[in-house]
Amino acid sequence: MQYEELFDYLSDAERRILAVLKSSNVNTYFNPEDVLDSVFSYIGRPAKRLRPSVLLMAAGALGGSEREHLALPAAAGVELFHTWTLVHDDLIDHDTLRRGGPTVHEAMRSVAKSRDGLSDHLAAEYGRNIAVLTGDTQHGWSIASFVDCALQTEIDPTLILKLIKHLQSYVLGNLVFGEVLDVRYGMRDLTELKEVDEAKIVDMLWLKTGVLYEFAGMAGALIGKNTPDFGDKEVQAITHFASNCGTAFQLQDDILGILGDEASLGKPVGSDIREGKKTVIVYESLKWANDSQRKTILSTLGNRSASFQEIETVTHLFRELNGVRRTKELAVHYINEALPYLNTIPDSKYKSLLALWAHYMLDRQF
Amino acid sequence: MQYEELFDYLSDAERRILAVLKSSNVNTYFNPEDVLDSVFSYIGRPAKRLRPSVLLMAAGALGGSEREHLALPAAAGVELFHTWTLVHDDLIDHDTLRRGGPTVHEAMRSVAKSRDGLSDHLAAEYGRNIAVLTGDTQHGWSIASFVDCALQTEIDPTLILKLIKHLQSYVLGNLVFGEVLDVRYGMRDLTELKEVDEAKIVDMLWLKTGVLYEFAGMAGALIGKNTPDFGDKEVQAITHFASNCGTAFQLQDDILGILGDEASLGKPVGSDIREGKKTVIVYESLKWANDSQRKTILSTLGNRSASFQEIETVTHLFRELNGVRRTKELAVHYINEALPYLNTIPDSKYKSLLALWAHYMLDRQF
Repeated sequence: MQYEELFDYLSDAERRILAVLKSSNVNTYFNPEDVLDSVFSYIGRPAKRLRPSVLLMAAGALGGSEREHLALPAAAGVELFHTWTLVHDDLIDHDTLRRGGPTVHEAMRSVAKSRDGLSDHLAAEYGRNIAVLTGDTQHGWSIASFVDCALQTEIDPTLILKLIKHLQSYVLGNLVFGEVLDVRYGMRDLTELKEVDEAKIVDMLWLKTGVLYEFAGMAGALIGKNTPDFGDKEVQAITHFASNCGTAFQLQDDILGILGDEASLGKPVGSDIREGKKTVIVYESLKWANDSQRKTILSTLGNRSASFQEIETVTHLFRELNGVRRTKELAVHYINEALPYLNTIPDSKYKSLLALWAHYMLDRQF
Repeated sequence: MQYEELFDYLSDAERRILAVLKSSNVNTYFNPEDVLDSVFSYIGRPAKRLRPSVLLMAAGALGGSEREHLALPAAAGVELFHTWTLVHDDLIDHDTLRRGGPTVHEAMRSVAKSRDGLSDHLAAEYGRNIAVLTGDTQHGWSIASFVDCALQTEIDPTLILKLIKHLQSYVLGNLVFGEVLDVRYGMRDLTELKEVDEAKIVDMLWLKTGVLYEFAGMAGALIGKNTPDFGDKEVQAITHFASNCGTAFQLQDDILGILGDEASLGKPVGSDIREGKKTVIVYESLKWANDSQRKTILSTLGNRSASFQEIETVTHLFRELNGVRRTKELAVHYINEALPYLNTIPDSKYKSLLALWAHYMLDRQF
């Protein structure tokens, strides 16, 4: 695939979204400095901005370049919504790196220790508290940015109100459901969880990731047509398209979490293994493992102090035992489900970009 | 003061708000069970509902009983907004009791221990994680409920959009600012904080509490007039009225935190002292204390294992050393600032209720 056109669009979208965020009148309310710094920390680091981009492309595909432009505050809102969930998720997962820099709770722990001279215990607590409040602040900003899409443009206020309600109930409810399932699966040995199977893991992926991609596509489609009609055929087509792509995105993410390197992942190699992340890779590999392989995998998975050698061994087993291949197979399946939905909408440069974007879900290496 | 009329109104408002919350279509999205239980736990306990009530009374005062009725989803939204901030605040403050029952993180810690057999450490972590996600979920529901105020009624969509933006930027930013100041003041000995004085403490009270009262009054006033004009004179009057009452509310709350009993407070006697809460009471008492009294106060304040006897001694000193009296004086001052704003609006039963409500801020014993 030739991705130049997509890459140009994505980097331009990143620039435009950052401009919206930096010029927002909301950021006068971020106080004190620790909150201000934390609110902008993930946002300011290089990222793919796949969610806001699909929103923009969907708006362009159904409404042309003028509507694509009007959708910018909503695109910024989706990026902010994703960001606050990352901040709370990193806190819950004890992650220390995100997009190549420290996570919010980790950065604020360091600050409290070096600047304020707090004890290790109190500094860690301060870091956690600021992370909770930073996510809360970004959550608010996200919604405020959606409001701007109506107040600053000709976009129908009722459409924006309906979108906000959908985001704050259906999308948020499903995201939280996925997050709690993830926490609960992580608390136990996967082999003990009789109720877990491949379909359940994929459902969880959709809850944790697919639902926000689905929303981004839907929001862009509705803004593109400037209609509050969620049942519109073209809107539905793009909604299903984005939903399937979101699941494929997360499957590919799990593969990269095993095969990627630190520079491109922005987090240490093996962190998914050390965290004991329950993925299709793990499930499938355990299914085909013999007793000794099974033992090796289970003794390393979720072991936060696993050695580089142990990580290498398990990574090798995940390739050998069909885990990586099966995950890729599923990712391809979801993209194949997604693409035909594009036949429903008229040809345009945005439609071509959406198709490229879908293929990129499978080909991306970071 | 004869409060019968106000009490009747408040208990009726509580019933009406709970009915809105229980019939909301949003609560189909609360999953799994631990999240569902946690989302409803504070809401279901008896409470004064002062914030949603001032919203309803303001709507009635400027728009009559029909608009007061239409404002119900917004009143429920304010109650939910307050609730999510309580859940995150209790987590940050390590509080274990709220409204006479366990806090969310504490309840879920117990569940994880008894039902899932987790270790103390993992159970506490599970409790904290569910508390973060429960607050996030209620935050979303709050905004969804404001949206309902426009979608289910004749209330102007643009007014509701502007209210949502104001809540999610100005109000939330100030609340978070107040919370972080509270965390930071709590980290240090008050005597060491050269920059803290009475005015700064009152500012923090306004940030943590006043700003949401202000919003509730303003939201009710705007809905009452069904106008998106934040600069409207009557709207401004009710906004200032509610803002001043909010500060008085918190000052009285700090007094009750020292003088109240467990049954009416819904939390243990002395918990404000054991937590080392930095209030005007503490600041003023330290100002007038001799060396020995100062030593007694500072050794008990923030000592989580302070004895009943020590709490009694410090409570006595807070009365003796002008702390309680000064705080009451300030509370009276803010109510006296608030009441004249009511002269700007036409007479009605709702206006009388608002005046009673303001006086009740000072007289309430729980």
